[in-house]
Amino acid sequence: MSVDSKELSAIYREYISCLNRQDWPGLCQFVHDDVQHNGQPFGLSGYRKMLARDFESIPDLRFHVQMLITEVPFIASRLVFDCTPKGELFGLHVNGKRVSFAENVLYRFRDGRIEQVWSVIDKAAIESQL
Amino acid sequence: MSVDSKELSAIYREYISCLNRQDWPGLCQFVHDDVQHNGQPFGLSGYRKMLARDFESIPDLRFHVQMLITEVPFIASRLVFDCTPKGELFGLHVNGKRVSFAENVLYRFRDGRIEQVWSVIDKAAIESQL
Repeated sequence: MSVDSKELSAIYREYISCLNRQDWPGLCQFVHDDVQHNGQPFGLSGYRKMLARDFESIPDLRFHVQMLITEVPFIASRLVFDCTPKGELFGLHVNGKRVSFAENVLYRFRDGRIEQVWSVIDKAAIESQL
Repeated sequence: MSVDSKELSAIYREYISCLNRQDWPGLCQFVHDDVQHNGQPFGLSGYRKMLARDFESIPDLRFHVQMLITEVPFIASRLVFDCTPKGELFGLHVNGKRVSFAENVLYRFRDGRIEQVWSVIDKAAIESQL
């Protein structure tokens, strides 16, 4: 499957919708079985577990794409979050406080699905709000 | 000045070379006077001060581009660092320990120069090495 820049951006936005509706069975349409996350061989099941855990810790979690930069087969995205984590998040005691933070994340796609993710979350921004 | 994707990538790599040789007078070729960094109106002088301070705190600082994604007028880059900060870095007591970490950073260019920067540094990765 060969996709152009516009198609890849559209696939990415569908992936984000999939996350926001917590459609875990649908995740395999967007993520490869052998996906790696920050160099870790998570695989699809590990990736799904990470996301399900994120929604468990942050019941009002919602992914919002602030910026999208596409150069096939790569996408870079700035995701912004405005949410209320229940307890601890990234080792920080958030305990129900509302926090806003960003994630700058780069992806490599293969055949229209994510195979590699390089994510950095702005933990310092969360700390500064506690 | 209208640049294509290849030219913008080349300009960006020249910008990184400019940083690595600490050519502060040359920075204005790559960065606008009214540059903003994570929403802060740093301006060129504030941007230069930030960089000079980074090299002061980290004498062996070197910017290495691991990934580059270009969609004019945007660039996303994953910068990786392998360095030895002297004392405190991002509020962490590194004190001369060698650490490796990444920065995922997005830029918007105007007329071939940087006008906006959205940077996230992987502070959690540094913490895990201390």
